[in-house]
Amino acid sequence: MNICIVGLGLIGGSFAKAISKKTSHFCMGMDTNTDTCNKALADGVIKQVVTPEQMSLADMVILALQPKTLVQFFKNNAKHIKKGTIVFDTCGVKKAVLDEMLPVANQYGLRFVGAHPMAGREFSGYDYSLESLFDKASFIVTTDGAEQTAVDVVCDLAKQIGFATIKVTDANHHDKVIAYTSQLAHIVSNSYCKSDTINQKEGFCAGSFADMTRVGKLDVKLWTELFLANPRHLGDELGNLIQKLTQFKTAIDNNDATLLSQLLKEGNDIKVKSLADEQKQKA
Amino acid sequence: MNICIVGLGLIGGSFAKAISKKTSHFCMGMDTNTDTCNKALADGVIKQVVTPEQMSLADMVILALQPKTLVQFFKNNAKHIKKGTIVFDTCGVKKAVLDEMLPVANQYGLRFVGAHPMAGREFSGYDYSLESLFDKASFIVTTDGAEQTAVDVVCDLAKQIGFATIKVTDANHHDKVIAYTSQLAHIVSNSYCKSDTINQKEGFCAGSFADMTRVGKLDVKLWTELFLANPRHLGDELGNLIQKLTQFKTAIDNNDATLLSQLLKEGNDIKVKSLADEQKQKA
Repeated sequence: MNICIVGLGLIGGSFAKAISKKTSHFCMGMDTNTDTCNKALADGVIKQVVTPEQMSLADMVILALQPKTLVQFFKNNAKHIKKGTIVFDTCGVKKAVLDEMLPVANQYGLRFVGAHPMAGREFSGYDYSLESLFDKASFIVTTDGAEQTAVDVVCDLAKQIGFATIKVTDANHHDKVIAYTSQLAHIVSNSYCKSDTINQKEGFCAGSFADMTRVGKLDVKLWTELFLANPRHLGDELGNLIQKLTQFKTAIDNNDATLLSQLLKEGNDIKVKSLADEQKQKA
Repeated sequence: MNICIVGLGLIGGSFAKAISKKTSHFCMGMDTNTDTCNKALADGVIKQVVTPEQMSLADMVILALQPKTLVQFFKNNAKHIKKGTIVFDTCGVKKAVLDEMLPVANQYGLRFVGAHPMAGREFSGYDYSLESLFDKASFIVTTDGAEQTAVDVVCDLAKQIGFATIKVTDANHHDKVIAYTSQLAHIVSNSYCKSDTINQKEGFCAGSFADMTRVGKLDVKLWTELFLANPRHLGDELGNLIQKLTQFKTAIDNNDATLLSQLLKEGNDIKVKSLADEQKQKA
């Protein structure tokens, strides 16, 4: 296939690298940054830099832009993609994005699939993209408005380039679960950094601190968009966590060992069950 | 030196393994669990199982018990330790423990040093102890009521058995910083597990979720004791985090992109500075 990758940042660049190294597909690409295009060409991870008009050459289009930019790009340029072409996006929220993308895809007869490659780094841009970024990662595909054959083609590509898990679901379920497994984690990590005590941490840290604050550094513009495109589910999870933390604060402020033990045991038991579930999934 | 290790669980067992493999000191040990004693003997990590009375043979005593048990053991058995012996504990809180230990140490003429080896695992007990547990870890020693020569001896041992960083500080400062870098992280991780959404997480997780929930499984009795021995500092940090999370909830509930960006940027900038500080420390 001729695959056109729109946006050669961390995610698009990693798609280009993985596809060009692990498959025999022909990769074309575009990016607003000319240097990035030249690097990707020089690295041999794309064979051709194309204009939006030249997307007509593609059998598949991968949109690897931030949500708002991605939607706008698609609205402006879907007309250049040939009818029947499989197009998938890579946004971290699905319902809000699909609501805007599907009508456009239908208008131009494109076979659109919502997708979310669950991989990232604390850095962005082509220079940090990796052929191996998706190894062992999960690839989520949404069924909303998607043709089964198109879903199959997208999933096959995902497997070929290294994703370990393929999850097919609907957009609302995706957004609900991701609010908890990913979005909330980024808010907590970012918030965790906001204590003056962080300036005195040297020599007082072990793994728990490193893990807790790892994703506190993030792409502010991207995550602002992602959070506000999923406010209900994210607000619910955040409210729930604040409530659980407040229970701990009450137990500690009241020197209530019984309540504190009970709260810790509750979380411990859930984590133990969760680990057991993971083992079962692997088995 | 003859070193007696009291308690051969995860921490005591790791001390015994590291000391016997990495130094020429003679290790004696005791544990209420006879099987554990026999295993440690069979593994050659202690050369002799001793009774509390036989602590008189030791030139150094390492107390590796949970805080309340440790304090009680010391009150009951300090009389068996010969005058001038260096004794250190391994508790994760220092002020509350030292307030109880120092008068007893003074009464029997023991050279007591408060210590906190910042290493652990999500498992406890001798079977999980490791010769390498302290490699790259931080060893914190408190100066409260301690003789400088005793501090030096304890720090030298810590370096010999693999600790990468030695931090000498006072108990209050220790407790303040540790409330943030370690205790709060355990509460957050434990609380994070408490969402029904965790049951649907399979296929929706990347590194951020794994990191966020890693220490949610913990020794309930131990951490209940540790938290309640440091309520003021821990309550302050927990209150601060709840406030920061609530700011995020407000921004999301109000669809306030400006505030949300500002909150994310604030955390991001602190994390970036913190990473830069770490690089400077390493250089």
